Amino acid sequence: MGTTQLESVPEPKYWHLKTVLSEALDSEFAVGEILPNERDLAARFGVARATLRQALEQLELEGRLQRRRGVGTTVAPPRMGVAVGTEQHIWPGAAGDDWQPADSTLEVPPASVAGVLDTGADETVHLVRRSRVSHGQPVAAELLYVPASSVRDLSAIDAPAGAARARAVLRELQRLELEGRESAVELGSARADDAKQLDRLPGAPVLVVTTRYVAQGRTAALSVATYRADTCRLTFGDSGGVEIHEGPARQAS
Amino acid sequence: MGTTQLESVPEPKYWHLKTVLSEALDSEFAVGEILPNERDLAARFGVARATLRQALEQLELEGRLQRRRGVGTTVAPPRMGVAVGTEQHIWPGAAGDDWQPADSTLEVPPASVAGVLDTGADETVHLVRRSRVSHGQPVAAELLYVPASSVRDLSAIDAPAGAARARAVLRELQRLELEGRESAVELGSARADDAKQLDRLPGAPVLVVTTRYVAQGRTAALSVATYRADTCRLTFGDSGGVEIHEGPARQAS
Repeated sequence: MGTTQLESVPEPKYWHLKTVLSEALDSEFAVGEILPNERDLAARFGVARATLRQALEQLELEGRLQRRRGVGTTVAPPRMGVAVGTEQHIWPGAAGDDWQPADSTLEVPPASVAGVLDTGADETVHLVRRSRVSHGQPVAAELLYVPASSVRDLSAIDAPAGAARARAVLRELQRLELEGRESAVELGSARADDAKQLDRLPGAPVLVVTTRYVAQGRTAALSVATYRADTCRLTFGDSGGVEIHEGPARQAS
Repeated sequence: MGTTQLESVPEPKYWHLKTVLSEALDSEFAVGEILPNERDLAARFGVARATLRQALEQLELEGRLQRRRGVGTTVAPPRMGVAVGTEQHIWPGAAGDDWQPADSTLEVPPASVAGVLDTGADETVHLVRRSRVSHGQPVAAELLYVPASSVRDLSAIDAPAGAARARAVLRELQRLELEGRESAVELGSARADDAKQLDRLPGAPVLVVTTRYVAQGRTAALSVATYRADTCRLTFGDSGGVEIHEGPARQAS
């Protein structure tokens, strides 16, 4: 790592420091290793702690570092590829789907969701909560909104609550013929409940994937899935999974 | 907006403040409107400026606010849906592609890219730089790596430099039969050159889309595209575009 002084560099200091730190992570540290504390790191590179902190934040954003409460800052493993789009159209809960249903309740959805589902202002819909685990880690939490009109024959008696009820809603939904699926990915911040489920702090950056399932010419269900942005790379396309262990976005910086 | 005091709320103050501010943005402010300054806002809600700043950062992450140098904090327009995946497989630069080629040079790619392209350690490849404009705004910057073996008949004499050379590389690439395409989306931070092109500050959160183009059973080209995370929602699937103007991720918080 050396004791490179950064005084003479014209670009923002933290930016150059980030590059230097990134190289050090590659050459000197193993995945999972805890970095020296901020004071020692700042002294080593001859920068102010504020500068160091900016560089560490950048590296966290890029998935190189993880900051964990009670542990410190560790070197992150490469991000996992998690498939969010496939060539085939399958309903949530169909065979090959790797989400675990947690429960299902009747809720009045947010106005924006009601608009997409074309339900009335105070109309309740089935809200199925599911979670996705990959490589033993929680990677995503989902809210799946299913209007009553999509699951007309659902019997409340068969499955009054919990995961059994969630499975009953999904089973009924699968009776419809799926005509299409559209998704969008955007940046968001973890809500308190998602954060807990994903083992992150509220407000942590997340990737929000919104998927509209179309049947009978209308939106039969709407999924809002929140993925950990620090550990996940969302893949879509033919076979999912562009295997680049050191992301070029990192290297080129 | 009122002068709601937040003292008695058990959840983190900035989190509750974010929700209150978000509602105020919906009801009292128009898109593009400049917010009152931090001191006035903090006084109005009875919170410390540090708390206010945390809430504003969250709202920026969720695309509700934009902070612009020399302007202040403004209410952001809804994010634009930008299609990144289509059912059809087309080469970059083919008809219907809305990227503008800027230039093309020969460069030694980062090791991670060379690994995917299966080129030698010091082997140069064509690096085509392109940009994407949507609704009059720059939304993405792309680095497209094309190994020489994918464009064997490229004549250096016909197009020595600039956009003409970039178009010549793309034209040659299109002679191959495209067999498949795989993409991945992940969170990143804007490199200095991309940031300039995208009218953002270096280090701003971006969505990095890596796409591998497969021809003749191998990776014929690799694209690393950097999208503005504040203004873009990346769509893929049947027809692209899940039209939810107020993202449910926002509303549900």
